Amino acid sequence: MSTQLKLIGMALIVQKFGGTSVGDADRIRAVADHVARTRAAGNDVVVVVSAMGKFTDDLIHLADQVSPTRPPRELDMLLTAGERISMALVSMALSDCGVESASFTGSQAGIITDTDHTRAKILEMRPDRIREAIDSGLVPVVAGFQGVSTDRDITTLGRGGSDVTAVALAAALHADVCEIYTDVTGVFSADPRVVPKARRLAKVSFDEMMEMAATGGRVLMLRSVEFARRHGVPLHVRSSFTWEPGTWIVEEDPTMEEAIVAAITDDTSEAKLTVDGVPDRPGVAATLFRKLSDRGINVDMIVQNTGTNGLTAISFTVARTDLEAARATCDEVKDEIGAALVTSVEKIGRVSIIGAGMKTSPGVTALMFETLSTHGINIDMISTSSIRISCVVEAEKVADAVRALHTAFGLDAA
Amino acid sequence: MSTQLKLIGMALIVQKFGGTSVGDADRIRAVADHVARTRAAGNDVVVVVSAMGKFTDDLIHLADQVSPTRPPRELDMLLTAGERISMALVSMALSDCGVESASFTGSQAGIITDTDHTRAKILEMRPDRIREAIDSGLVPVVAGFQGVSTDRDITTLGRGGSDVTAVALAAALHADVCEIYTDVTGVFSADPRVVPKARRLAKVSFDEMMEMAATGGRVLMLRSVEFARRHGVPLHVRSSFTWEPGTWIVEEDPTMEEAIVAAITDDTSEAKLTVDGVPDRPGVAATLFRKLSDRGINVDMIVQNTGTNGLTAISFTVARTDLEAARATCDEVKDEIGAALVTSVEKIGRVSIIGAGMKTSPGVTALMFETLSTHGINIDMISTSSIRISCVVEAEKVADAVRALHTAFGLDAA
Repeated sequence: MSTQLKLIGMALIVQKFGGTSVGDADRIRAVADHVARTRAAGNDVVVVVSAMGKFTDDLIHLADQVSPTRPPRELDMLLTAGERISMALVSMALSDCGVESASFTGSQAGIITDTDHTRAKILEMRPDRIREAIDSGLVPVVAGFQGVSTDRDITTLGRGGSDVTAVALAAALHADVCEIYTDVTGVFSADPRVVPKARRLAKVSFDEMMEMAATGGRVLMLRSVEFARRHGVPLHVRSSFTWEPGTWIVEEDPTMEEAIVAAITDDTSEAKLTVDGVPDRPGVAATLFRKLSDRGINVDMIVQNTGTNGLTAISFTVARTDLEAARATCDEVKDEIGAALVTSVEKIGRVSIIGAGMKTSPGVTALMFETLSTHGINIDMISTSSIRISCVVEAEKVADAVRALHTAFGLDAA
Repeated sequence: MSTQLKLIGMALIVQKFGGTSVGDADRIRAVADHVARTRAAGNDVVVVVSAMGKFTDDLIHLADQVSPTRPPRELDMLLTAGERISMALVSMALSDCGVESASFTGSQAGIITDTDHTRAKILEMRPDRIREAIDSGLVPVVAGFQGVSTDRDITTLGRGGSDVTAVALAAALHADVCEIYTDVTGVFSADPRVVPKARRLAKVSFDEMMEMAATGGRVLMLRSVEFARRHGVPLHVRSSFTWEPGTWIVEEDPTMEEAIVAAITDDTSEAKLTVDGVPDRPGVAATLFRKLSDRGINVDMIVQNTGTNGLTAISFTVARTDLEAARATCDEVKDEIGAALVTSVEKIGRVSIIGAGMKTSPGVTALMFETLSTHGINIDMISTSSIRISCVVEAEKVADAVRALHTAFGLDAA
């Protein structure tokens, strides 16, 4: 089924609008106008909204003023006020455009989550009221980012939660597309702030988008892309300022030629730890990473190298905010695993090249290493997947690395 | 059962905090501290909160910017964000005071209303979750002003709605008292801004309080006092700035001596209409007031006088905001009822004396009229109940009238 073709006729479209897209009264009216046009073209529309602009940050600031502890259940109750405001205003504006509409909280929309406040996971979707609303000709406007737990308490879905709401609703309602409206015009071949010659990509595969999200791409969070892929929901990332078509994120189409390298990403939010002089025997890595996992520390890249002396060095990267906790954990297990030394680097850089065509194109790795070398950039760690190569480099050299690779792989806009 | 006695031991107390009482982070922490003390004294507490300070007004302003029509369902969804914020913050602050607590929306608290958005009426209370919370040792913090309709939509209870929430919860939970915390220290013998010598009343009967609320008393709305009387919920109006005991509003106690006049109220929010030269035949008043009622215009005082010529004059008062609509209605029915003339006065004043002891004290009416006459204040309309006498006078003379009557009836503080 071709999604683009289907959109010519009647389709069900989920349109998600981020904080800048509903940042003030004018933006909200512009959103309503766009929804009305989509509706007038013969489509059913479900709208998902984030809180206005920086309102969520303002609420967090208020909570900080009141309470040093900010109990998570109450923080969730507080933060969900943000989408409540934006969804009611969007629904009002729709009504003024002659579009009948009704707003629904996460709870009313049937978004059932676990009880893990401030970062709840969706367990089940029961969007009966949303379906009823669509069937009776309304445009439902749903609060993003929020749900109701199996304990009947209000929860939030954590960072990028509004995208997750939109994708989950699109999946449950068998929508034809989930449109993510934001303040950029789509997904680019590199961060345009780093690479002025970066190009907007018309189409990216789920696999590529997941690798991009995991390695520093800022447009979509990994979680919502994973969810969309699992449920086969085509995503369309586009701008609510220009309203032009943006980037489609879809299943790989085997009949099409794939770009060898589609995009270069960069990330300077991580730190590196090295546990050195560890006897090379079974169970050492298991002990270390089990302990890190038990403490809720997410490990990203892991590299292990054994020298000729039978001692091994394990290096891994974590979010910089987790560095202190990870360091303490390593110090604790140091004796248990017989390690000689724990060292850390607070700020590292990572540059990644991503492309579905890499699977069938030898020589990509060599070109990447040569390019970095030519530009005097030393490689500290390497990790690869079938469609990605990441190199850890000095943080200050990341931007140079991205620009050099963007040029080397022929991605610069004419 | 003496409520005051019972409060020495373990009691269930509903404490309602208005917008100024939770106006900023400091006020919220002060509220939490007070609740913690009440709890430490061995009482169970249920907290009901309004939105912070002027936040509801800010939301209405935002709605005005976005939408000229402001559909009522969406306006309710919008406004309920206000209590959501204050209740989460109060619950956080309680937790910091070592008081276990959980916040609940109107819907979660089981406040079931009709579907009349922006001014819904409570149909049923199902506070199961609140009871469970109390039983498990928590202090529930409930959003005032809001409920969920029989159509499962979010509703608001209209002006004074948070007091109604508090009283309804107190009734449903069989609380020993409902404490209404506000920015004044209680109910006064007259508005202290008008009469500097006004005294705080330690105790007022429900009947007196209802008459005061109906004739310009600004501390409590008629609706919540009615509700409290119907369910026998003692009210205690007090200050969240001084935390001192305020005014108890309770059932009349037949063993106690009643004040002849407890309070003088004033009101300058009404307008007067007169339909003159009407043939005195049955059905004329019915026709007029049915039509006004059908248009949602609330009529307050009504006075009818028939002259010797067989023609009658009907005067009545309405909220000034309804004057235009009422005037149009009168003009429409003028011919139907054969009236000669419709006149109106845009701004009238009303002064009322209220006291349960009036029932058994002749001479009160005479003293009131004499006092006004002595001060050169002309009486335009008169209406009475068994415990109240109201006179319509020139709006500019209302303050003089209140002060003169306050002195004449011996209410001035020493």
